[in-house]
Amino acid sequence: MSAHGVVPLIERKRDGEPLSADEIAWLLRGYVAGEVPDYQMSAWLMAVRLKGMTQAETLAMTRAMVASGRELEWSGIGRPTVDKHSTGGVGDKTSIVLVPLMAAAGAAFVKMSGRGLGHTGGTLDKLESIPGFRVDVPLDEMRGQVERVGAALVGQSPELVPADGKLYALRDVTATVDSVPLIAGSIMSKKLAGGARSVVLDVKWGSGAFMTSREEARVLARELVRIGEGAGRATRAVLSSMREPLGRAVGNALEVREAIETLHGRGPADLWALTLELGAHLLQMSGIEPDAAAARARLAELRDSGAGARKLAELVEAQHGDARVVDDPSILAAAPVVVTVEALGDQPRWVAQADARAIGDAALALGAGRRKKGDPIDSAVGILLRARIGDRVERGQPLAEIHARTEAAAEAAVHALRSAFVLSHEPVAAAADAYEVIGKEQIGG
Amino acid sequence: MSAHGVVPLIERKRDGEPLSADEIAWLLRGYVAGEVPDYQMSAWLMAVRLKGMTQAETLAMTRAMVASGRELEWSGIGRPTVDKHSTGGVGDKTSIVLVPLMAAAGAAFVKMSGRGLGHTGGTLDKLESIPGFRVDVPLDEMRGQVERVGAALVGQSPELVPADGKLYALRDVTATVDSVPLIAGSIMSKKLAGGARSVVLDVKWGSGAFMTSREEARVLARELVRIGEGAGRATRAVLSSMREPLGRAVGNALEVREAIETLHGRGPADLWALTLELGAHLLQMSGIEPDAAAARARLAELRDSGAGARKLAELVEAQHGDARVVDDPSILAAAPVVVTVEALGDQPRWVAQADARAIGDAALALGAGRRKKGDPIDSAVGILLRARIGDRVERGQPLAEIHARTEAAAEAAVHALRSAFVLSHEPVAAAADAYEVIGKEQIGG
Repeated sequence: MSAHGVVPLIERKRDGEPLSADEIAWLLRGYVAGEVPDYQMSAWLMAVRLKGMTQAETLAMTRAMVASGRELEWSGIGRPTVDKHSTGGVGDKTSIVLVPLMAAAGAAFVKMSGRGLGHTGGTLDKLESIPGFRVDVPLDEMRGQVERVGAALVGQSPELVPADGKLYALRDVTATVDSVPLIAGSIMSKKLAGGARSVVLDVKWGSGAFMTSREEARVLARELVRIGEGAGRATRAVLSSMREPLGRAVGNALEVREAIETLHGRGPADLWALTLELGAHLLQMSGIEPDAAAARARLAELRDSGAGARKLAELVEAQHGDARVVDDPSILAAAPVVVTVEALGDQPRWVAQADARAIGDAALALGAGRRKKGDPIDSAVGILLRARIGDRVERGQPLAEIHARTEAAAEAAVHALRSAFVLSHEPVAAAADAYEVIGKEQIGG
Repeated sequence: MSAHGVVPLIERKRDGEPLSADEIAWLLRGYVAGEVPDYQMSAWLMAVRLKGMTQAETLAMTRAMVASGRELEWSGIGRPTVDKHSTGGVGDKTSIVLVPLMAAAGAAFVKMSGRGLGHTGGTLDKLESIPGFRVDVPLDEMRGQVERVGAALVGQSPELVPADGKLYALRDVTATVDSVPLIAGSIMSKKLAGGARSVVLDVKWGSGAFMTSREEARVLARELVRIGEGAGRATRAVLSSMREPLGRAVGNALEVREAIETLHGRGPADLWALTLELGAHLLQMSGIEPDAAAARARLAELRDSGAGARKLAELVEAQHGDARVVDDPSILAAAPVVVTVEALGDQPRWVAQADARAIGDAALALGAGRRKKGDPIDSAVGILLRARIGDRVERGQPLAEIHARTEAAAEAAVHALRSAFVLSHEPVAAAADAYEVIGKEQIGG
């Protein structure tokens, strides 16, 4: 491979012509091997960003990314394998509720997650607020844990899809991040390499999400499903709104506590509704409960019987965490300063907006997130929403609780939260849990 | 400057938004200083290739390129400074005729040239076929030579526009060469840094040129003139056809001989016509002969009086070459094998095509050019056209003479030349010397 052999491939993509699967595989292989230099790859990426890729090209690229590393193989595991990915949002602790429920239902669920960045949290950071919990289960020990427990909640293994990290680092500094085929390839290559046969994708839209409009989210969802189906995996995507945070808790320990409360049947309605929606699709696709209503009933029963909570305790135990947390969340770190933000104004009002992005940014400023990779985080701090879109509030009633490390940090958060909330003189409807499902039927694949 | 500071500039260009002159200057400066890495520059270049640049951006980029190196300063030289650039073609030895004539007319003409690549020859290679001729006059000696002789025929100084070489090397391997603003910036930055106040651009189109269509050439010509005018230089572009080679000689020593013959009044009509056209514009713009007809008459007179040929001898002498060549071109290297390609067919025919690209490629194969940078060349070999478009030829009459190093090379060239010539049963008009001139008036600048 010479640098000049790459030029015709860049040229054709620049001119909007599709490349063959072999050509894409050759390019990616060369890039990962260090034979195609960054400067050629970034020119190609910019051409992709501006000219797009066909479905066949996107699938070929995703497969080539998978081929850059190890692929997990679950034959003989004796349980249907399932997986889930969320495009990220504020207060999204769904995996911590969903994974134990699915494992309790008999699925094998290896959920590989990332860390938080900016206003969106990361499941790994949340889990690490549980004393002792380790997210770095080696791949070789994972199978044993899945056989025993049915699940693992771990960090993305660097042995899987090494092409993704290398490509992402380049896209990040070359203005080629926001490309649907490149985003879809990045997400799906990790799902494919994880080896699960059924995959559900939680594609969020709204101020706190990566995709701000519903239509953008729909376009990405279709691409994700096409790749999954094209690679022979049962795949569905669920579009959900991220106008306000998911649930009431934003911040690591606060979110773990809320996830545990949800497994105990005391969680916020929106978090439970999304868990039911995603879980029911996985139960159906994996054949555990082919009927939608039965699938939802099964999940509710696993929650109500305490089976989900017991499974979480098993999972925490298997990963060296303090499993007492499931019955006593007070062992989680607590912030020393708690300040309540109260509603102002003389008349009763209705919450018209509790902006997810602004609330995520406020939690970030408190220390719950990181501005750049590698920054430390404070697991105790965050925000608890006491009023949600559609709620009626009177003067002096709480809008939110700020959990802060210092008085000064809390003070700054008060101002940030006041501008995140918009109160109306007229009644406002609650944000509805109206999910749009994208599956094989919707994309005609 | 951090890698992330560059991202918003790439992003905006990707989205088709113009950058400010300061932003472009900052980017280019960072790139030349090694602070902006190749992979960010190539993403930006691809965005430029696909989204274009405004006239203001192109001018700003050109100026930033000029600022990357030394600029020649000619104040006090006592002669009007002129310059010329050709976009390159097959058999183009115009500079060797034009530069001495202009110097004889009283201009200061420092012509910096490049080497040949592929099917197009380079003026430096041609000049080096003159025994002893040195093209590497140091910048510090150049002024003295221009004061004495009025001209220099030299290689592009690496002290001028270092950004150009670095950018071109990156464009070459990232499929971003064929972008009008990038091409125009590359050409004009070198003209601006050369310091001449009047610039004429010979923009060729046709099979043997970089731009194959007249419209493409026109677009580039307008961009070149806009930059020149924008930077305060009198600038005109002349569009000329490169369907067939310019003149009859293709190959280094053969072309020098033809240029000398032209200065003696015995050259091919098309070469002389182009020399007159370009020279008349320079004489007018520089104020030496403001009237077009007078300018043409002056050039003819300088040729007919032998002043042009004497000036070439002075120039060759000043650059350590054997000046006897001007009166005795037989001191140039001659090829050992000369083979004539004759017309076939029973009926008389007319030459409908003598494809410049194919003839350039045949000369390249003989060793007159280089396939890649650094390849050695053979100055003696090449092709002499004995029939040109519109000529009537009968069976056995010569179409071309092949000057080769070996019989085998000549044999291969015979086949190549036969396919370069297309003969018609019907009379064909000669290629007309119809030049289209692009100046301030044509671009509305």
